[in-house]
Amino acid sequence: MQKLNYKNILREIKPSKQENEKVKKLSKRMVEVINECAASMDVKADAMLVGSVAKGTWLAGNADIDILIKFPLDTDEKYLKEYGLKIGHESIKKMEGKSEERYASHPYVTGYIEGYYVDFVPCYNIKNSDELKSAVDRTLLHTEYIKSNLTLKQQDEVVLLKKFMESVGTYGSEFKVGGFAGYLCEMLILNYGNFTETLKNAARNWNCGFSFDLEEYGTSNLFKDPLVAIDPVDKNRNVAAALTLQKMSEFIVASENFISNPSEEYFTSKDIITDPLKITDQFNLRGTKTFLIIFKPPNIPADAIYPQIKKTENSIVRVAESEGFSVFGSESWTDEKEVVLILLEFETWDLPRIKKHLGPHIWIREHQERFLEKHGSNAWVEGDRWVVVVERDYVNAETLLSDLMTGKKSGYLKFGKHLKKKIMNEHKIMDLKIFLVSDNIEGNVLEFLYHYLNNGELLFR
Amino acid sequence: MQKLNYKNILREIKPSKQENEKVKKLSKRMVEVINECAASMDVKADAMLVGSVAKGTWLAGNADIDILIKFPLDTDEKYLKEYGLKIGHESIKKMEGKSEERYASHPYVTGYIEGYYVDFVPCYNIKNSDELKSAVDRTLLHTEYIKSNLTLKQQDEVVLLKKFMESVGTYGSEFKVGGFAGYLCEMLILNYGNFTETLKNAARNWNCGFSFDLEEYGTSNLFKDPLVAIDPVDKNRNVAAALTLQKMSEFIVASENFISNPSEEYFTSKDIITDPLKITDQFNLRGTKTFLIIFKPPNIPADAIYPQIKKTENSIVRVAESEGFSVFGSESWTDEKEVVLILLEFETWDLPRIKKHLGPHIWIREHQERFLEKHGSNAWVEGDRWVVVVERDYVNAETLLSDLMTGKKSGYLKFGKHLKKKIMNEHKIMDLKIFLVSDNIEGNVLEFLYHYLNNGELLFR
Repeated sequence: MQKLNYKNILREIKPSKQENEKVKKLSKRMVEVINECAASMDVKADAMLVGSVAKGTWLAGNADIDILIKFPLDTDEKYLKEYGLKIGHESIKKMEGKSEERYASHPYVTGYIEGYYVDFVPCYNIKNSDELKSAVDRTLLHTEYIKSNLTLKQQDEVVLLKKFMESVGTYGSEFKVGGFAGYLCEMLILNYGNFTETLKNAARNWNCGFSFDLEEYGTSNLFKDPLVAIDPVDKNRNVAAALTLQKMSEFIVASENFISNPSEEYFTSKDIITDPLKITDQFNLRGTKTFLIIFKPPNIPADAIYPQIKKTENSIVRVAESEGFSVFGSESWTDEKEVVLILLEFETWDLPRIKKHLGPHIWIREHQERFLEKHGSNAWVEGDRWVVVVERDYVNAETLLSDLMTGKKSGYLKFGKHLKKKIMNEHKIMDLKIFLVSDNIEGNVLEFLYHYLNNGELLFR
Repeated sequence: MQKLNYKNILREIKPSKQENEKVKKLSKRMVEVINECAASMDVKADAMLVGSVAKGTWLAGNADIDILIKFPLDTDEKYLKEYGLKIGHESIKKMEGKSEERYASHPYVTGYIEGYYVDFVPCYNIKNSDELKSAVDRTLLHTEYIKSNLTLKQQDEVVLLKKFMESVGTYGSEFKVGGFAGYLCEMLILNYGNFTETLKNAARNWNCGFSFDLEEYGTSNLFKDPLVAIDPVDKNRNVAAALTLQKMSEFIVASENFISNPSEEYFTSKDIITDPLKITDQFNLRGTKTFLIIFKPPNIPADAIYPQIKKTENSIVRVAESEGFSVFGSESWTDEKEVVLILLEFETWDLPRIKKHLGPHIWIREHQERFLEKHGSNAWVEGDRWVVVVERDYVNAETLLSDLMTGKKSGYLKFGKHLKKKIMNEHKIMDLKIFLVSDNIEGNVLEFLYHYLNNGELLFR
């Protein structure tokens, strides 16, 4: 394996000395401000810097400052929520930032201070996972575990791994990606020692259901996920539970590609062509027919939108296939605020008026009777099975899509919970070719289309 | 079950007294002439009337006179063949008929005398199946078995069963039909006693693999066919071996239909519409695309042509489906002399330029290497499997058919043995709609197309 100059790479992707000092200083001040606020309100609470900044594993320009406001274990939950938010708002105000409430496992305050996104999250001051009251509390234990186990050298290895993951498209455990969480990257470096060993092992040794267990709890068999990474601070949790088979496979493949032909390119983004004309050309060359279903996303947290869109997309594909159309591919995209796109590319979008309908085997006499009552003497036998020609409900994919969206055929479609009304009320169905000549197409949409057409591109350099 | 007037029906379908007397008299004379011929040549051979005429089970207007020329068991085979043919030719000449040589298990003479087709077939005079030297010899035992076991009343029941089978399209064990042999019909009447019991049992009690064994040899388990009918004169033979699952199923269904609603109509042919315009209309309504491959059949026995055509047809369908086209239905037809038609009706006959090609699972690293060498970085991963977009060889079904027939893609097609050169040298591929407006379409072809469109029609009255 060719040696890369990792020092050079790290110089690009690690926070500079200035950024490092600035972020650390800012975080320290935040902790102090929160503690002062708490004291002034006479609240027994204690701020602690957690997350990648605390662990020294963040990527240059990507510092999200996460601070926990720890309350004693015996605090009343209502009290914690109320004063957690109060302290958060008050502290951000003091630091002249903008604050906003969010909700994860319980409410917290997020803000924007001196160019950095910050989260101030109230939690219980637990010592181990048995005392866990909410998912947030676990962050505390994770930060402590990584801080006490990850060496300074290994912090750099984590940065390499995260950047690699980001460049090949497998970083991030949110539903949008379904990839590797930052904590999972840190656990991988602890497990394999460094970046290249992690990639070598992923490329050569991982199988579906592969597991590792840093603290040797022996609980891997509890999980059936593609990758099982037993949480060192909670033996009953798989840190890789949100990792999809898709993203695990992509990481394995990208690792293999890197190992056989290492290149600094794996730590940089790829150029993307977002010229609508070129994208139109590519679609035209394929000879398929592509439709977009366009609608506004519901007003729910971003992480909740993606699974609902995916569910709707998959359901449309299933219904279309069951109606006899052949779907070449599908994908969806949203800016999480204004627009959702579901893309459906058809291999067959026009069908004859008739189809064959398979009936019961002739041996089951009572089924036959019912079948013949319905279809009369138009039926015939193929081998030992009844067959009849029936008219299709849909000879055209666009009509089917329209009826699905307007609810004329909605019984068949499994919409995401919050999407049903939304889609039915206002949506557009557009031939992609027409969409691509319309004005003001967002760059992000063109990126989405580019990636759809060049699906595996990020895996290779 | 409603009682039909079977006497009336039999009056229509049984040979009249005149026909009966004429055929019997003619057969008797033939036996005498053959015996005289043999004597005059000083050949020890003995003529015997066999088949449906001998058994009294032929349908009105359908008498085929089969006469065996029995040679002693110790006759040299070459001698048997030579003198069998000589006696045959000589006898037909004496009776002022036209003779022609044919070949089954060994050569025989066929002729046309006073309006009847006759077969004069040399064989060995065996007493039981252990002495069997060729399949022809068995006819002797069959005739003797039926003659000594079938009552006069049961002869009528056989006639009813044969006529029913004929009307619903399941009569005849030749490859063209794949249905029930006359001898099998006789065995069924012996087994169930009469016509209606046979139909009741077929309709209600038969399953796939059903067996009956008149002489209780207990050898049914030797056979894996849809229907097992142990030959009463040969325990190691299934008389129903040539019966297809298709025809067995059709008989079961037609029986059920008859039993639930008996009608004299089941003993008459159905009217068939052979108006090309109406057939064109029906095809147009379906919205499919139908091609005919038209060629001259090879000069081989009729029974050998059908399996080869079927094999070719099935192979074309398989190749077309594997290229991504969707075949709605296929069928073939021949007049056995001038023309073979293979009909292919497509549900999808135009396809996009590209298709998805599934590669190896990512876990099998060495397969992946070979796959990527071939397809390069156009590949991507879906789930845990490699996928790549490749260009189709064929975007159009007609081009595919043409390349298959001319051998440009012949490696993929399994032609019938004698068909390959035939098809490649001279064939036409025609859109059915164009074929249907061409001049001089044979009535039989239109019947074939009518039956293709109205597949199960014969099963219902």
